This record gives sequence, structure tokens and C-alpha cells, in this order.
Amino acid sequence: MSAACSVGQAGEDAVLEIIMDELGSASASATAPVKMTLPPGDDAAILELPDDGAPARIVLTTDTMSQDQDFRLSWWSPEDQGLPAGTAVGRKAVAQNLSDLNAMAATPISLLVSLTLPADTPLDWVRGFYRGLTQGLQTVGAEHCIVAGGDLGSGPGISVSITAVGRLGAARAPLRRDGARPGDQLTAAGPLGRAAAGLALLEAGHGCAEEELAALREAQLAPRPALTTGMIAVDAGATAGMDLSDGLLRDAGRLARASGVRVRIEDQALRAQARALRPAAQALNLPETQTLRWAAAGGEDYALLATFPAGAALPEGFHRIGEVIGPAQTGERAEDAGHADGALEVILESAIDELGWDSMRD
Amino acid sequence: MSAACSVGQAGEDAVLEIIMDELGSASASATAPVKMTLPPGDDAAILELPDDGAPARIVLTTDTMSQDQDFRLSWWSPEDQGLPAGTAVGRKAVAQNLSDLNAMAATPISLLVSLTLPADTPLDWVRGFYRGLTQGLQTVGAEHCIVAGGDLGSGPGISVSITAVGRLGAARAPLRRDGARPGDQLTAAGPLGRAAAGLALLEAGHGCAEEELAALREAQLAPRPALTTGMIAVDAGATAGMDLSDGLLRDAGRLARASGVRVRIEDQALRAQARALRPAAQALNLPETQTLRWAAAGGEDYALLATFPAGAALPEGFHRIGEVIGPAQTGERAEDAGHADGALEVILESAIDELGWDSMRD
Repeated sequence: MSAACSVGQAGEDAVLEIIMDELGSASASATAPVKMTLPPGDDAAILELPDDGAPARIVLTTDTMSQDQDFRLSWWSPEDQGLPAGTAVGRKAVAQNLSDLNAMAATPISLLVSLTLPADTPLDWVRGFYRGLTQGLQTVGAEHCIVAGGDLGSGPGISVSITAVGRLGAARAPLRRDGARPGDQLTAAGPLGRAAAGLALLEAGHGCAEEELAALREAQLAPRPALTTGMIAVDAGATAGMDLSDGLLRDAGRLARASGVRVRIEDQALRAQARALRPAAQALNLPETQTLRWAAAGGEDYALLATFPAGAALPEGFHRIGEVIGPAQTGERAEDAGHADGALEVILESAIDELGWDSMRD
Repeated sequence: MSAACSVGQAGEDAVLEIIMDELGSASASATAPVKMTLPPGDDAAILELPDDGAPARIVLTTDTMSQDQDFRLSWWSPEDQGLPAGTAVGRKAVAQNLSDLNAMAATPISLLVSLTLPADTPLDWVRGFYRGLTQGLQTVGAEHCIVAGGDLGSGPGISVSITAVGRLGAARAPLRRDGARPGDQLTAAGPLGRAAAGLALLEAGHGCAEEELAALREAQLAPRPALTTGMIAVDAGATAGMDLSDGLLRDAGRLARASGVRVRIEDQALRAQARALRPAAQALNLPETQTLRWAAAGGEDYALLATFPAGAALPEGFHRIGEVIGPAQTGERAEDAGHADGALEVILESAIDELGWDSMRD
């Protein structure tokens, strides 16, 4: 069958064969933390959780990425020798889902992958996607995470729906988002705004020949979330934490709301993050305020937002970005920059008005 | 906020609120077989599996339904007082996924729901969908199955991706599809072709005033798979089994291939199934052979296909539809009706040439 063949011409069984081929070596891992009771291809996957004497706690998260919404096919032109089409989508899908598990302090054990493909999708795209998936797992150190099953269907655009299954170690508490207390330090593990700057470069069709720019593009196309920061945060006494994937302002607002507090983002900390994004703003002839917007509202960082008690030493890799303050007082006047509904959870010292990303809004 | 408002106008937080409202009572069940460690809304859901002294085995399946592929919005006109838009999609999504768990002899414990919605999707559709989801769980006796999490995103058409999590009881073997042996009886639990006949009625815009026709339409719009037939089959000594959702010919071919055997579908058994579909063929002025096609190749029955040793008494609700024979001999001539690639796993005594459903083919 020709490599240029489409999934519509090849039929479902041929697509399944490609998927099984690509997953073959990845799924055979003998050292996986769970046992797959069945070979893939039955009605459902069965995972046997190891018995460590504590109640088995599984952690589940799901995310869908849609063409032209979460990725564009045009990002990979035929001349682009960097990443074959599909590969980056696979890598991003892994990053997005495993970042959610990390934010609960869980260890990834399995993925389920539901692919919706238009009939004219090249088989090569499917191959590239699964290659990106297994590459993504290896890159973030989750090569023992098994792709346990999935589904194939047709639709008007490519859509990738992934469910990630994790496991919470016997002795470890999950990292919840509702535990932040006034006085806590607000911190992040991982840089902010890089994926958003990379997206701007991609959308402008910038060549990204310079190393700094290529690294920003890479942050968008092949993100590498750290998969241990959640556990590190819990072990270091974090009071709350969550995945930073929809932009600092929006996600900090969610953490604050869940905890019944407000947070203040410090100008100096935000500017330190923004400075690293200057090359992108310069390359695109954008004003420097754009770098602040990327750092404050750019999504897809797959970093970790966490709060620690005042005065606690921060674990390596965590940097302070602000502090937790008490809930808003009635009648209090605050510079609101957080929540689309007008709530006052996030106070931003810097003067920018860009909000976080709302996946639903026109 | 007006009921006619779209998700694009309302924004993600408003949509989430509707979902939480609809799920509120359903998720609060105190008698659920698993404990939800966290309230919904964190980065991921945590399920604590009860410790029954055996290794915890979780069963996972995922399915995506896309607008105009697996359902049409036009099936529900404003005049149709039967089911609010969205409700049937929710019910069908439940049926499809829980039917897969049943086919492994697993008990459903949780669902994860990823919704992709165009910005102009009415909020009422979202409400109807979640209502259909909880109704569907109740209808099939899975009201203790928790909707543990999900994802919301935008896309060109409505797409619903569900992951169902089940649990395999301590003493029970899963119902695999690779255990059929020559001489076994081939059986089905549940009628065949009804959802396909119902789809033909819907697509033709038939009013379905007669009770018989309305019941066929209902089989398409609000399927009610039995959730105990998988366990019953295992307990009665079934050698293999699988979900019947892509049509008898195609699914029987898959079971045969997985088991390394062939199966013969008996003419008399198929005709008995087809007879019940006559009212639909008559209402649509289709030849009677169409009823055989629906019974043999119609999808979405969410019935169970199972094989039992020759001479074994079949459990209640299972009917014989054929038998398992040995693998094809080289040079043997057989009337092939099974596999698009020309394999010879299914021998059909009846003379029809319609094949099962291929979700990928143009």
C-alpha cells in the first residue's frame, strides 16, 4: 500500500494495522508498572494494578485536540524537514495529558487514544501521530506508560481524544487545587509563555532559524512537561497545585476560586518570565508588552502552579511568582485581571489587560 | 442567561456550570462501587477501588461519536416532542461504551466525557446531552457509574468522546474474543438489525406513528444494551465473546479472526431476526431482502456475540445464530461474505452480499 494513500482508500483495518505496528515495541515493555491482561484489540483493555497493600487509586484525565483549534496542519509544510506531519500532534497530546496527571502527583500508567479522521487523511499522518505519541512518552520519561486501547472514526476534521490513566502511590496525597491559604507563596515550576510565543512564530510563518526562536517554536510543537514536579511539590509540603495549561491568569484564577482565596502576581516575577520571550517579539515586530501578555496569559505551558506555606524553602525548579491573599472584601476595590465573569481572584501588579484563553468563546 | 444562548456566547465557565448542575445528583451517589477521592473540577479524577483481596483489575474502553457520522442534528426537529436535542446522543454514547464493558464481563464504575462543540451549539444541546447521559446510565441499570471528569473544546462539528472505566470482579475471567473453538455454538444475546432499521426510518424522515416502527427508531436513538449478558456468558462457560456493534458479519469476522477459526451463520437464524424488521421495510417500500441486510450487517445493536461449547445449554436471552468451524483449508472454496480484505472467516448461508460497516471507508 502506497505511503501517500488516505485512510478512506485504505479502510479501517489497514489503519489499525499501522497503529499496531507503531505501538508494537512500545506496548511490549516488560517493566511496565501495570500488567496488561489482554493483547490489544479486544472490546476493552484490562490493566492489573500492582498490590502494594494500600487501596488502589487510579487517576483519570481526558483531553481532546481538534484540527484548526489546537493545532493546524499548515504548521508542517512539505519542505519542513523538522517533524513529519502528525508527530507534533502526538507529542503535544502526550504532554497535555501527562501534565494533568503530574499536577495530581500521579504516575502515568496507560493511555487510551480515540482518533477521528477525515477520509482524505494521509496514512502517513496516522503513522506520524503514533510515532509522536511514543516519542513523546519517551521524551518525558514515561516510556512505561502503555497505549492500552483506542477508537477510530470519521469526521470533518482530525480530532484526537486521549484519556490518561495514572496511579497514586500508596503513601502520597494527591495535589489538589483547593488547599491554598492566605500568606502562601504562589510558585510555578517551568517557564511561562514560551508555547504562546512559539505559536505566534508559527502562525506568522517565521522560519525560526535562530536557536532561541527555534526553541520557542519547539515549546509549542514538542512540549516536554516535567513529570515529577507534582510529586516533588507534595513531598515539599505544597498546599495546592494544578496544571498550568490555559495561561497563568486563568489557571491562577481557578486555583484561587477553588481555594476561596485571591492571588497576587508580582510584577517583577512576571517581567522575569517575559524577558526570555523578547527575541520572539523582536522577530515579529511586536511591542515589548506582548511578552508580558504571553507570560501572563499564554496557554499550553504544561508547567505546574503550586502554593507553599510562607517561608517554606521552595524545591528546586520552582520559582516564586506571587502570593496568596485573603478573599475579596465586600466593597473592596481591586484591579481585576482574572475572571471573565468579573470575579476578583487574580490581582496583577503589571498593567496589562489580556485575559487567559477561553476555549469556548467566539 | 437565555436558554437559546450558544456556548460561544456563554463561554466555557457557563457551559461547565450547566454540566455540573446536570451531573450534580448523579455524581453524589453514596452507594457507588468506587469512591471519588476529589470533588469534580480538579486536573484529574481519582477513583479508589474497593479492596476485595484480589489484584485490582480495571477495564478501559473509549469511543468517539461525531456529528453527521454517528448522529445527525436533523434527527431532532423543533416539532419532535419526543427527545430534546442532545439527549439521544448522550444515551447512545452511554450505550456504546457500557456495551463494550459488558462484552468484557466488567462492571461499569466511571465515565470520562470529552465534548467538542462548535461555538454556535445551543446551551440546550449541552444540557440535553448530559441529561441523556444520566438517563442512559439509569435506563441500563448503571446509575452508580460516576461521571468522573471530562474536557471541553471547540471544533467544526459536535464530537463526543467517552472513556468508560469498568472493574473486573475478583473471581471472574474476562470475556475475550480469541477463545472460540471449532464445533462451538455461535450465539447472540439481543436482537439484530433493529438499530439499522431505525436509522433507515430516521434518514427517510418517517413519522413512525405505529408502535412497531417507533420501537425500531427507539433502538437507534435510545439503545438499551443489557449490562449483565457478559457476566452471564462467562459464568455459563462461554469460550469467547464480543460486543456486536458494527454488524454481525463484520463482528463475527473479527471474533473468528481473533480465534483463528471460521464461523457459519445459519440461514434460518438470520431469517428469524430479519422477520421482525419487516414493518420497516414495508413502511419504506424496500424489498424484503433489505431486512436480511439489516440483520446481517446493520450496526449499533449493542448486543453480545458469544460462543459456547457444542451441546452446552445456552443461558436465558442467548439465541443460536450459527456455529464455529475450523480454519479455512488452502484451496478450499467458500462463499466469502465477511472480510473486506477477502479473508474467509464468515460463511453466510443466506444469499446476500452486503458487508458490515467500515467507519473509515469513503
